Amino acid sequence: MRYEELTIEGRNAVLEAFRSGKSIDKLFVLDGCQDGPVRSIIREAKKHDTIINYVSKERLDQMSETRKHQGVIAYAAAYEYAQVEDMLKAADEKREDPFLILLDNIEDPHNLGAIIRTANLAGAHGVIIPKRRAAGLTSTVVKASAGALNYTPVAKVTNLTKTIQELKERGIWFVCADMSGTVMYQLNLKGPIGLVIGSEGDGVSKLVRENCDFTAAIPMAGDIDSLNASVAAGVLAYEIVRQRI
Amino acid sequence: MRYEELTIEGRNAVLEAFRSGKSIDKLFVLDGCQDGPVRSIIREAKKHDTIINYVSKERLDQMSETRKHQGVIAYAAAYEYAQVEDMLKAADEKREDPFLILLDNIEDPHNLGAIIRTANLAGAHGVIIPKRRAAGLTSTVVKASAGALNYTPVAKVTNLTKTIQELKERGIWFVCADMSGTVMYQLNLKGPIGLVIGSEGDGVSKLVRENCDFTAAIPMAGDIDSLNASVAAGVLAYEIVRQRI
Repeated sequence: MRYEELTIEGRNAVLEAFRSGKSIDKLFVLDGCQDGPVRSIIREAKKHDTIINYVSKERLDQMSETRKHQGVIAYAAAYEYAQVEDMLKAADEKREDPFLILLDNIEDPHNLGAIIRTANLAGAHGVIIPKRRAAGLTSTVVKASAGALNYTPVAKVTNLTKTIQELKERGIWFVCADMSGTVMYQLNLKGPIGLVIGSEGDGVSKLVRENCDFTAAIPMAGDIDSLNASVAAGVLAYEIVRQRI
Repeated sequence: MRYEELTIEGRNAVLEAFRSGKSIDKLFVLDGCQDGPVRSIIREAKKHDTIINYVSKERLDQMSETRKHQGVIAYAAAYEYAQVEDMLKAADEKREDPFLILLDNIEDPHNLGAIIRTANLAGAHGVIIPKRRAAGLTSTVVKASAGALNYTPVAKVTNLTKTIQELKERGIWFVCADMSGTVMYQLNLKGPIGLVIGSEGDGVSKLVRENCDFTAAIPMAGDIDSLNASVAAGVLAYEIVRQRI
């Protein structure tokens, strides 16, 4: 469920949202629609690196709350995104080793909200999500974060692997969660660290995993495959907290 | 959202459900309705210790899916409940110290499902919930448990405090989660243990807390009040796992 203020419909409203600098998570455009105003909107979307989906009229009608979408609907972030640089600066100002949480393919807004909440309480300096295949900062995420979004910055990056590579050059170590890894208690998780959590179904993607320094496994005694993604993030984040204390 | 097979409507259907031994979580009866069949249903409900709610006709109409409730609607559990005794027996058979997770006022079905999932993977022998102020084993819980309900038993007890007192006499120690407690890393959580998790808003209730042996705090570095209940349960359950390894 999306609250109305986060769904922007109609050509002028969407174009205005882009021009005013509002963070647009996703743009839906009527497939085949090529007139001037729509082309301007697509140009703005590309400039801001927004994900564009070309969809059918039926789909737009179904998504529309006002029934006046004029062929364009945009989903705006309820909160503004931060920059990764801000997170490193915050760690530096607190004289702490950077502690970042990166999410690969977490599409469930409740999980994203719960993880932002965990990041706040575990003392992480920020959460990094990819532009594609990720939940945006919708009202469901805001609610599930229980206020943590007011304190813990979230950055959206185009390419998670590239971000990891850049941060590695700045001395941050990366550990990803994977059942096939080393039991987390046996790893040294102190120092500047990025914790990478994947989706429940697919885990961390291959390319991202190959770019991590360690792979950490949560010991599993049971019969089923995996923990809920936000629970797994919590258990790993607190193993980092324990080692840092 | 409840699936149809879990909502039982109409006098004969509800009475049959009770007599066939199906677990009924809640019974809704038209307030003031006193005829023979309804009295029989209420008698069965009392015999099975089912929570009875007397409600208005408008409420029943609103809940009804068939529009033929005849003054009674029952919510049945999607899974059968286990007995606490079965959990102790399972621990004994595995030659493990009992490890139980008790939930005080967890009303969110997603959290209940995620906690059953965590219980399974952390090697707990069962989850105990109270009859009142708890989510039942609805289809949402089943889904959120990701299959764990097939392996990890859940028991529903009339009085959580009484259950704790009985289990203490059998050598189980109880630790409850509370911000005001001792940091969890400093507690000895080995041996037969019951972990008590409260709701996000209110925490563990006073009476339950007073009956616990320890109070464990998850260290919190951030700005907000509490972790998501299923994340807190995961972090504490895995501290128990760590100490047991």
